[in-house]
Amino acid sequence: MASPEIEALTQALSRLPGLGPRSARRAVLHLLKKRETALDPLLLALARVSERLNTCSICGNVDTTDPCSICADPRRDARSLCVVEEVADLWALDRSRLFPGRFHVLGGRLSALEGVRPEDLAIDSLVRRVADGGIDEVVLAMNATLEGQTTAHYVAERIETYPVRVTQLAHGLPVGGELDYLDEGTLAQALRARRPVA
Amino acid sequence: MASPEIEALTQALSRLPGLGPRSARRAVLHLLKKRETALDPLLLALARVSERLNTCSICGNVDTTDPCSICADPRRDARSLCVVEEVADLWALDRSRLFPGRFHVLGGRLSALEGVRPEDLAIDSLVRRVADGGIDEVVLAMNATLEGQTTAHYVAERIETYPVRVTQLAHGLPVGGELDYLDEGTLAQALRARRPVA
Repeated sequence: MASPEIEALTQALSRLPGLGPRSARRAVLHLLKKRETALDPLLLALARVSERLNTCSICGNVDTTDPCSICADPRRDARSLCVVEEVADLWALDRSRLFPGRFHVLGGRLSALEGVRPEDLAIDSLVRRVADGGIDEVVLAMNATLEGQTTAHYVAERIETYPVRVTQLAHGLPVGGELDYLDEGTLAQALRARRPVA
Repeated sequence: MASPEIEALTQALSRLPGLGPRSARRAVLHLLKKRETALDPLLLALARVSERLNTCSICGNVDTTDPCSICADPRRDARSLCVVEEVADLWALDRSRLFPGRFHVLGGRLSALEGVRPEDLAIDSLVRRVADGGIDEVVLAMNATLEGQTTAHYVAERIETYPVRVTQLAHGLPVGGELDYLDEGTLAQALRARRPVA
């Protein structure tokens, strides 16, 4: 149909999460029709990011600076450290603006099935950050999956000898969750962690 | 949250049709994490398209060559010409692989409301293509909207003096359409254009 260059662009776009072949084609058409306002700005933005992209040597976030903009932000509370599995989790938490501290990205979760061992994750560097001092609380914000929780337990054990408070995200009913539609695991967690009515 | 470069990329992506701020962020994360397999190929594909992008001087299609790959394709039947409003329509028809001929993109539709007059559309160039000869049939494939149909009538009038067969897409029930859910306009069209059962 279209030239190989346009086909290649459609393919590259359709590999993005959330874009299928159909929406990629629509996006390409939009780019072709709005060269000045869509194609060229996107090209420039991509080129700039590609030029400067790197992984933060402190926390493992991806950013265009090192240290990343979170680690470099003096308004961030350096005494609170939130440990997450992936960069996506860091972004999700940061977007919520609820956590004022800094982060540590493990780069995955322990998994016997996928052969992910502690040395494959950024756990040693986390222990070093905690050992270096200046941190009061480590919040374990792993996914509420079996592997996430196994990872959380392992990380907690590795840092239990240091004088930091280790906490983890609460498990229970999601906001708007209807009992009727929730899985048994969530219900069991919510029941087990029930609290007195204030 | 992220650096200005990453924010700019997220914004550029979120302006694509089909991507909101949330999915743009997911897409950016994907690009950042898969630099070699996602970010750089997309950058390259965009750069190549941006370099060569142009509008076909014959039919108005956007492509990286001029004439576009459809006009330049010798396997295409040059005697059939399909007139569409927008490049998106050309692509949709071409994707269906049902039309073996060539195209002509008007670049819009007549609209008193939006102040779009015949001279704002590529109608003169269509008349010239028809006047030049070698065309047997002109298929008017405008949208089944009031403005699309007004445009189709106008175009039909402009080329009626030439020895070409002028046809238009059939209107009626869409495949899978249930009477119960169809609008009255479609039902009226389908009834008016009813055909003997073969």
